[in-house]
Amino acid sequence: MAENNTVRFGILGCANIARKVARAIALAPNATLCAIASRSKEKAERFAAENFLPESVRVYGSYDEVVDDPGVDAVYVPLPTCLHARWAVKAACKKKHVLVEKPAALDVAELDRILEACESNGVQFMDGAMWWHHPRTAHIEHLLSVSHSRSIGPIHFIHSTSTMPATPEFLENNIRVKPELNALGALGDLAWYCIGASLWAKGYQLPTTVTALPDAARNAGGVNLSITASLQWDQPNKTVATIRCSFLSHTSMDLSICGSNGSVHLKDFIIPYRETSASFDFTFGAKFVDLHIGWNVRPEEVHVPTNLPQESLMVQELAKLVASIRDCGSRPSTKWPEITRKTQLVVDAVNKSLELGCKPVSL
Amino acid sequence: MAENNTVRFGILGCANIARKVARAIALAPNATLCAIASRSKEKAERFAAENFLPESVRVYGSYDEVVDDPGVDAVYVPLPTCLHARWAVKAACKKKHVLVEKPAALDVAELDRILEACESNGVQFMDGAMWWHHPRTAHIEHLLSVSHSRSIGPIHFIHSTSTMPATPEFLENNIRVKPELNALGALGDLAWYCIGASLWAKGYQLPTTVTALPDAARNAGGVNLSITASLQWDQPNKTVATIRCSFLSHTSMDLSICGSNGSVHLKDFIIPYRETSASFDFTFGAKFVDLHIGWNVRPEEVHVPTNLPQESLMVQELAKLVASIRDCGSRPSTKWPEITRKTQLVVDAVNKSLELGCKPVSL
Repeated sequence: MAENNTVRFGILGCANIARKVARAIALAPNATLCAIASRSKEKAERFAAENFLPESVRVYGSYDEVVDDPGVDAVYVPLPTCLHARWAVKAACKKKHVLVEKPAALDVAELDRILEACESNGVQFMDGAMWWHHPRTAHIEHLLSVSHSRSIGPIHFIHSTSTMPATPEFLENNIRVKPELNALGALGDLAWYCIGASLWAKGYQLPTTVTALPDAARNAGGVNLSITASLQWDQPNKTVATIRCSFLSHTSMDLSICGSNGSVHLKDFIIPYRETSASFDFTFGAKFVDLHIGWNVRPEEVHVPTNLPQESLMVQELAKLVASIRDCGSRPSTKWPEITRKTQLVVDAVNKSLELGCKPVSL
Repeated sequence: MAENNTVRFGILGCANIARKVARAIALAPNATLCAIASRSKEKAERFAAENFLPESVRVYGSYDEVVDDPGVDAVYVPLPTCLHARWAVKAACKKKHVLVEKPAALDVAELDRILEACESNGVQFMDGAMWWHHPRTAHIEHLLSVSHSRSIGPIHFIHSTSTMPATPEFLENNIRVKPELNALGALGDLAWYCIGASLWAKGYQLPTTVTALPDAARNAGGVNLSITASLQWDQPNKTVATIRCSFLSHTSMDLSICGSNGSVHLKDFIIPYRETSASFDFTFGAKFVDLHIGWNVRPEEVHVPTNLPQESLMVQELAKLVASIRDCGSRPSTKWPEITRKTQLVVDAVNKSLELGCKPVSL
């Protein structure tokens, strides 16, 4: 057991995103990076040097050494999706808490193996969708709450995008578009955020049906490069969400939520324009002025500062839960695994709708 | 024939929107309002008094008197949609140029009767979608042009909304939700703008298929109150547009256009927040900075001033075309009738998809 409340992280793999999370762990006040591994020790050493990791970080040439390291409380798994289940289950069985990069798994059956391993071993699970942890998210959540005096009211419509123009090199070689490594492509990598945001706006209620739209593009290996889909809820009121995800379009991360009384717009919901502050536009009680030649209000731009990057806030949240389990005997929180599982269920439904030629899929 | 280039307008009906267009005609430098009519002379007189119309405006108790008035060059038809064909055809046959409020007709067959009457009588046709005429529209069109140095490139995705929270009184009594007066409801009244904007962004190319999404809401009379639909183009590149229109949600008029190199966002594309200037957000060449902890650019807010309201610019454009026909023997422009017809074709396709239980409809 650690001497203080600091949670000790190990990282399995030296993917590019591991650089960001290594930095996030270093910045989180209750976490420390203590081990990294790659499949070759040389690669791990290069990663440690290039990222100026302190000498105290143990550098391993195999993932097993991290999960076997008794000085590691939690592992971060940025491996290709097809390897998530194997290594997350292995880590959980060694009583390591698990932070898995999104998409959490290739499908919900595989995710359930991870979640069952975490549950039976009493370890915390969380996926790597970092925007949940930005204070902007909580701020907007407040405006979505019907008890707020300026609540935007029951949600009627949600629209989100996650697009980035991949380079030819990426489309050829990146793990996210390799059928044998990550068969979900844009659906796992980009839509994970849009689906999560849609669920979040609806209070984590699963949609009634999910329908892919007939414009999906795939690469030669059959991996999704572009997807448009709609999610529909029938209760407590009709709501529709549209999502657009693509590796082939200009960078966009739009999120619009429209209710009966107001709306919220973000253009950078996944990665804020800058790290220290994020903003959103909020419109409440908009009406047209007489003759319909203008509006009575304009959107308010609400700025939400943060003293830590959202990835560090994610690590801090996980470390807080881990410390509570490790030091106080608490049970793991079910909040994060449940959000992950609902997101994965919708990912699976979009995939099924695509397979069925864009037929609606009930959940 | 008028003594100068001023075009003399008559208005058929004293609907609320006629107040706005009467003002727009008064403000347009090349137009003058010279006649109004309602089904009762008292109502027309009240309209003239309430809107401070000059004494020179002739006030009639029947629409026929306007179309028979030799001092009228052009008529504006803000009547319920079911009456458009009857009065627009009648006006055209009397050699009056025609400005028809949107939706132009109940379906393309009815619209074609109007367009044929205009063509065979050599008069100009235009529909009342006013946002085309705002200088912001031309400004953005420039950024959509692939020859522009900062062109947003081939368009991949378009999203637009047109929603307004109707009062219970509106939902009960307004002509726009009466099956016998305007069977199109939100599809004609609100989606007209979204469909037009989607066509415009694609250089007025008709989509390959149109698909309604399964969340439509109707009132007891079967009139659409909420619609979500997608438009898909296969050439020259895959493009998808989603549109969301509703009389049941908070006011929104979003338009996002995303291409390969940039994107454009408006939150007030139909009615700008204020009359004297409108803005849009433009993002070009956005990339994530190292570690994906921010963006290299933020959206630029581009302000476009206008010296006339967009409705006056619409009247000015129509009057310019009319004066050219009347005074110089020009042929009517085919641009505006063609845009209207394409919009109506897509309206009809959405309607058909709704009837077919949200099956894709080819165009």
